[in-house]
Amino acid sequence: MKHFTTVHDVANVQALVSDALQLKANPYDYSTLGKNKTLGLFFLDPSLRTRLSTQKAAQLLGMHVLAMNMDRDGWALELEDGAVMNGDKAEHVREAAAVLGQYCDIIGIRCFPKLADKREDYSERTLVKFLHHCKTPVISLESATLHPLQSLADLVTIAENRPQNRKPKIVLSWAPHVKALPQAVSNSFAEWMLASGNELTITHPEGMELCEDYTRGATIEYDQQKALHDADFVYVKNWSSYHDYGKPFTKGENWMLSPESMKVTNNAKIMHCLPVRRDVELSAALLDGKNTLVAAQAANRVYAAMAVLKNMLESGTPAVSGTKQKEFQAG
Amino acid sequence: MKHFTTVHDVANVQALVSDALQLKANPYDYSTLGKNKTLGLFFLDPSLRTRLSTQKAAQLLGMHVLAMNMDRDGWALELEDGAVMNGDKAEHVREAAAVLGQYCDIIGIRCFPKLADKREDYSERTLVKFLHHCKTPVISLESATLHPLQSLADLVTIAENRPQNRKPKIVLSWAPHVKALPQAVSNSFAEWMLASGNELTITHPEGMELCEDYTRGATIEYDQQKALHDADFVYVKNWSSYHDYGKPFTKGENWMLSPESMKVTNNAKIMHCLPVRRDVELSAALLDGKNTLVAAQAANRVYAAMAVLKNMLESGTPAVSGTKQKEFQAG
Amino acid sequence: MKHFTTVHDVANVQALVSDALQLKANPYDYSTLGKNKTLGLFFLDPSLRTRLSTQKAAQLLGMHVLAMNMDRDGWALELEDGAVMNGDKAEHVREAAAVLGQYCDIIGIRCFPKLADKREDYSERTLVKFLHHCKTPVISLESATLHPLQSLADLVTIAENRPQNRKPKIVLSWAPHVKALPQAVSNSFAEWMLASGNELTITHPEGMELCEDYTRGATIEYDQQKALHDADFVYVKNWSSYHDYGKPFTKGENWMLSPESMKVTNNAKIMHCLPVRRDVELSAALLDGKNTLVAAQAANRVYAAMAVLKNMLESGTPAVSGTKQKEFQAG
Repeated sequence: MKHFTTVHDVANVQALVSDALQLKANPYDYSTLGKNKTLGLFFLDPSLRTRLSTQKAAQLLGMHVLAMNMDRDGWALELEDGAVMNGDKAEHVREAAAVLGQYCDIIGIRCFPKLADKREDYSERTLVKFLHHCKTPVISLESATLHPLQSLADLVTIAENRPQNRKPKIVLSWAPHVKALPQAVSNSFAEWMLASGNELTITHPEGMELCEDYTRGATIEYDQQKALHDADFVYVKNWSSYHDYGKPFTKGENWMLSPESMKVTNNAKIMHCLPVRRDVELSAALLDGKNTLVAAQAANRVYAAMAVLKNMLESGTPAVSGTKQKEFQAG
Repeated sequence: MKHFTTVHDVANVQALVSDALQLKANPYDYSTLGKNKTLGLFFLDPSLRTRLSTQKAAQLLGMHVLAMNMDRDGWALELEDGAVMNGDKAEHVREAAAVLGQYCDIIGIRCFPKLADKREDYSERTLVKFLHHCKTPVISLESATLHPLQSLADLVTIAENRPQNRKPKIVLSWAPHVKALPQAVSNSFAEWMLASGNELTITHPEGMELCEDYTRGATIEYDQQKALHDADFVYVKNWSSYHDYGKPFTKGENWMLSPESMKVTNNAKIMHCLPVRRDVELSAALLDGKNTLVAAQAANRVYAAMAVLKNMLESGTPAVSGTKQKEFQAG
Repeated sequence: MKHFTTVHDVANVQALVSDALQLKANPYDYSTLGKNKTLGLFFLDPSLRTRLSTQKAAQLLGMHVLAMNMDRDGWALELEDGAVMNGDKAEHVREAAAVLGQYCDIIGIRCFPKLADKREDYSERTLVKFLHHCKTPVISLESATLHPLQSLADLVTIAENRPQNRKPKIVLSWAPHVKALPQAVSNSFAEWMLASGNELTITHPEGMELCEDYTRGATIEYDQQKALHDADFVYVKNWSSYHDYGKPFTKGENWMLSPESMKVTNNAKIMHCLPVRRDVELSAALLDGKNTLVAAQAANRVYAAMAVLKNMLESGTPAVSGTKQKEFQAG
């Protein structure tokens, strides 16, 4: 795998899930695979689980880690090509990405959407600049539209908890929130469930449809109770509007899942990527109940990241050396 | 030792001091003890010595370290059980602590008091939440009421410098300051001195008594000169009022120790946990004089942390694996 | 080498350049040299390349790294000797430096000038305090007046790209900028070029002369085109006024290098330390052209730092042990 930014970067999703499960069972088996290799983690936005789990994954594989909050520890980045840089941005992404690519064998980058301009966000402007300029394998640590490390961990968690003799019914259920959130986790969950051959039902208020590029093949059901009927897994997540871009849906309080609304499910497991607003997105009773998988999902972030890093390391990323830099200058 | 949050977590204080001294003499003897283990250091408040010394201690034991400023790098934490999370707190400590516990074999947490509500601070609300929800050994990196890593380092420093043939006279002397400071270092120093069988005299302005839970057994002497008479060690520290909770004592300028006021001591060594306000808490002449132990105390922070980590590692903290996570879900 | 703060700390500049080139060719040959040694990186100002490249260099040599933003993660530092610390500075550099020196075998410190008081900046007040109080080898990560790690990397880059049969013509060309920048990179570049026996021409608007202590021996030429004639390397850099201290030169827009103004050179290579303001300091056409060395310079920062660290490690910095601390107390 060259990059890891969407499910389409993965040749064999099932093999990657199996790898993650293997690594979870034997986390120290590859502790020298990453010897002398450096993972750079660059955050343009806050991070807890992603920061820690990816760092831990790299350490378990014997890699060096360089982690940095780009704007706060370094300089504000200019993204615009052709910009005359006489404002407050001290460094262009062309130089920053090129330099980071030289210091690291693999790069992780977190860059949230601004939720102001759909075209800009869905063009994945920042991520694409890094992909283009850093000449090194890139892992998305959550981009404007997708969060593939989360989705891989979700798939691993479902693999551990699914009924063995039949396909599970998986439901993605929109949840209320006090803020306007990105669509990234939801887009990504849909993309990965569908690409891995699962059946997915998505339920949300009318008008809150996600971008069809990710949900094509899923069943859209506006009646939450109908959607939840016989569900095995319910993935709970807020997102702001894709069509009325970035606007929050404010009249959805009755969309919060509770033990009562879960009665129609097949004793479904509850999933959420965290952080979660208790009793806003999801009732505390469900979060603290015996069917919750939220901690398991977070734990599996380590093994999802390990599987991706292992795959990249085994693909033979170029060692940092004089030859690499020459290549860059020539390019 | 399961946790390290107070002297009462330690079965044998003298053995722990001996361990620290051994580790200081031979700091590389256990460089593989922590192989494949992860220490997480989570800061809700600023830190210099604690951050660096604990990180170094873990590295000397071969551990991986994940360090993070919780609020600034991640999300603001909700502590209240049952809170409807529709405000500015994005994540509940229940989830955050559970997740951190899954990523780490041992967790360190720094959480200062707010100095507004005595009951809240002295209930150690934040620390207790982490102890309860993270299912992993926890080391206090200074909590609302105690700073045990500092006190252990202080005890190690006294062990290195004490007269061999008799009990030393140890005095804790209140010092002026421009801000209202926690009582944690002072509470903790008293607790550890008394628990290790030392005799302790505490001197401070009337009304500035510390919480008796920590000072029971110490001699309280309001006359500083009387307290200092024949002292071997003088520990200098400001604290805000425990009884008129969080209020600074503003008329105590004459409590600042100087070479003059030290004349009645037995050529006493000067101790302070740092950072210190020169010529406010303590005269520069004493800090720069030959009797100061402040740098030695700071250096011993490394070996105190090593002794605690070594003890926990040898107690056999569970390896991070699938079984650990299952336990969490069930719990 | 005891410290690394200026070219004058280096006994043999050419040997250090050779060392860096050797390390670049074989970056893993000394991966155990730094075993059990700790490098502390302390930032009083922002950093990207320096932070990452120095950390990576230390990791490649097997060292432990402790990195910290001093003011933000820790406490604000008081620098004034004899200060009564009743203001907003919580810790004096005397204690901070002494403590850091005890935790680390080698210390790196970044401390920019304030550009308000020439005497204060050129006395290298902060750096000198660390040199004096931390009792440990110190590496400048860019100080008020010099940036030796950058200059060493620049010299390595010139060694890789110079004509073999004759001395190259090297030109340092002042560039416009929207902010008032330090003179450190320019002072340092001049110092290193001249100390290594190169010929240097410096071109800038009249009145923007650098401090003669660093430029003595260079040719000063106010006519940029004359200076550029037959140049092999053009180092582009803004600096604020040394004589009218800290003032930016605001009427220098025509000093920005473009493909047109480069025509008189000997197909010169373009150098810049980054971050660079595109189309303000330097035309994007040149930055993106085939003669740019800016990425090569950034890559060579790793090997420059490795060469310095290797030299210090081989000089036998004292191991962190009880003896070291005793020495400190006595000193």
